[in-house]
Amino acid sequence: MPLIFNRRQIEEALEGVDVTTAIEHGFIAYSRGEVVVPPVGELVFDDPPGDVHIKYGYIRNDDFFVIKVASGFYDNVKLGLPAADGLMLVFSQKTAQLECILLDECHLTNVRTAAAGAVVAKYLAPTRVERIGVFGAGVQGRMQVEALLPIVDCRAVVVWGTGEAELEAYREAMSGHGLEIETTRDSDEVAATCNLIVTATPSHTPLLRTGQIRKGTHITAMGSDTRDKNELEPGILRLADLVVADSIAQCRERGEIFHALEAGAIRDGDILELGNVIADPALRRTDDSQITVADLTGVAVQDIQISKAVYEVLRRPA
Amino acid sequence: MPLIFNRRQIEEALEGVDVTTAIEHGFIAYSRGEVVVPPVGELVFDDPPGDVHIKYGYIRNDDFFVIKVASGFYDNVKLGLPAADGLMLVFSQKTAQLECILLDECHLTNVRTAAAGAVVAKYLAPTRVERIGVFGAGVQGRMQVEALLPIVDCRAVVVWGTGEAELEAYREAMSGHGLEIETTRDSDEVAATCNLIVTATPSHTPLLRTGQIRKGTHITAMGSDTRDKNELEPGILRLADLVVADSIAQCRERGEIFHALEAGAIRDGDILELGNVIADPALRRTDDSQITVADLTGVAVQDIQISKAVYEVLRRPA
Repeated sequence: MPLIFNRRQIEEALEGVDVTTAIEHGFIAYSRGEVVVPPVGELVFDDPPGDVHIKYGYIRNDDFFVIKVASGFYDNVKLGLPAADGLMLVFSQKTAQLECILLDECHLTNVRTAAAGAVVAKYLAPTRVERIGVFGAGVQGRMQVEALLPIVDCRAVVVWGTGEAELEAYREAMSGHGLEIETTRDSDEVAATCNLIVTATPSHTPLLRTGQIRKGTHITAMGSDTRDKNELEPGILRLADLVVADSIAQCRERGEIFHALEAGAIRDGDILELGNVIADPALRRTDDSQITVADLTGVAVQDIQISKAVYEVLRRPA
Repeated sequence: MPLIFNRRQIEEALEGVDVTTAIEHGFIAYSRGEVVVPPVGELVFDDPPGDVHIKYGYIRNDDFFVIKVASGFYDNVKLGLPAADGLMLVFSQKTAQLECILLDECHLTNVRTAAAGAVVAKYLAPTRVERIGVFGAGVQGRMQVEALLPIVDCRAVVVWGTGEAELEAYREAMSGHGLEIETTRDSDEVAATCNLIVTATPSHTPLLRTGQIRKGTHITAMGSDTRDKNELEPGILRLADLVVADSIAQCRERGEIFHALEAGAIRDGDILELGNVIADPALRRTDDSQITVADLTGVAVQDIQISKAVYEVLRRPA
């Protein structure tokens, strides 16, 4: 019988987990070719509309393999249910026995996604962050900033959103972190005052234009994970000194890098992979005037790493 | 929190389920194009060797969708663990909420696989079954015969195997069903005395040759589910009056029909699909001298149907 844990137990266990380090190690293993990640499984529904993704894989010679199910059913909100849901299954790599079911309701996906943003900032942000700019006042707009707190000293944040209500909710939710939070509906304000920018929206048209980007800016684009979505004008990637993908293979097919390749703004050889940037200081920014862009589309190795780390805590005798 | 059931509870619930009818309805829906079944997800391991399959899908406008995980780690036997393991997850198709986890340890896969054999016999076996022949003395060699008991009157069985020990174990395990069980290591004996034959082995070379097959024989080939495996000489499918696939799309890629197509023994247009044969009496055998062959490779709709049926029983208030 596998061990089974609910979201509350998982949240408690996360307090004992160094998520950022676990995710870093995952990206390194991935870029070294040590991770088996088959194509994502997908189920699409029309009525009500929704989609389910199955991400799965393993690190060679590791103890476990992981299968994750994550769903997005947006009409759920009308029923008072969360739009996003999911679970992670941890199996022994030696026997295929199911060891643990993590009924995380998509929380671990949110945490590992935010942690990737922190890893990117650790290795690519300029030395002195003046102000953090965030596009998107949703769950990731909040969690990305929370994940940055141990990584950067800056506590000044400006968040861009489309509606006053969501911006007000953002200010309220984030008030407890010693942060100085401003809100705006003007992308110029973000581009002109922030040198660490995170885009975390489902936008289908660019939020930032090439002409807005100042020297010394780092952008983490994590909202676009399909071919339709697009947060950055392709020229921004041409302008960048460094363009980093969480997975080059995946970013060729979706996200900002896909759009920039399509537009001819960058070539395949211009793209670095995050695991290599973490492992090799020579691949990072060489001065604080450089422009860097990281494109995060979400890789199964993040699910593998976070579920293993949580399970390690939860399996310990109390 | 989903409902979670272990193998013992699932076995008890199965006593209240008409599995054969559930599987029949599944095949009909599948052949009507009402079932969404994406490509099977697969993880392959080298050390120890093993594989994991993820089968998933849904019937349109149904209440649920299902994700099944099934593994085969053959070195497990050395550790005193079963080689096959797995679980099924039942989700609401309206909200994607996980409603039920069936920790069936692969038992439901075995039951739904045997049930497909029973469905095939119901619609394709000759009117009077003289003797049932079984190739393979393993789990399916037993369960296929058990599933036939409500479908055919014949109680005379001859089982072909490669070792005396497994044949003896088969006789012992199957003694409680009022069956008259003989064993053999000679395929001629099976072909010459049986007009309902089930092949249930992982053989890579044909067990039955074209010249052995008598008029009026029905063969259900369920052992071969990959490109490497092959239980019937391709000429047998050319000889057959009817060749039936559980899924034409899947059998084009693997199993006996794949080999017969490759060998030029049959053409694509010669193949019927099981759901259509169930729905339309005109597609079945027209007399008892015809030779019929059914090729079963296992379709996710079987997993969908059996897990839904078991969940329907288990969710009822006690």
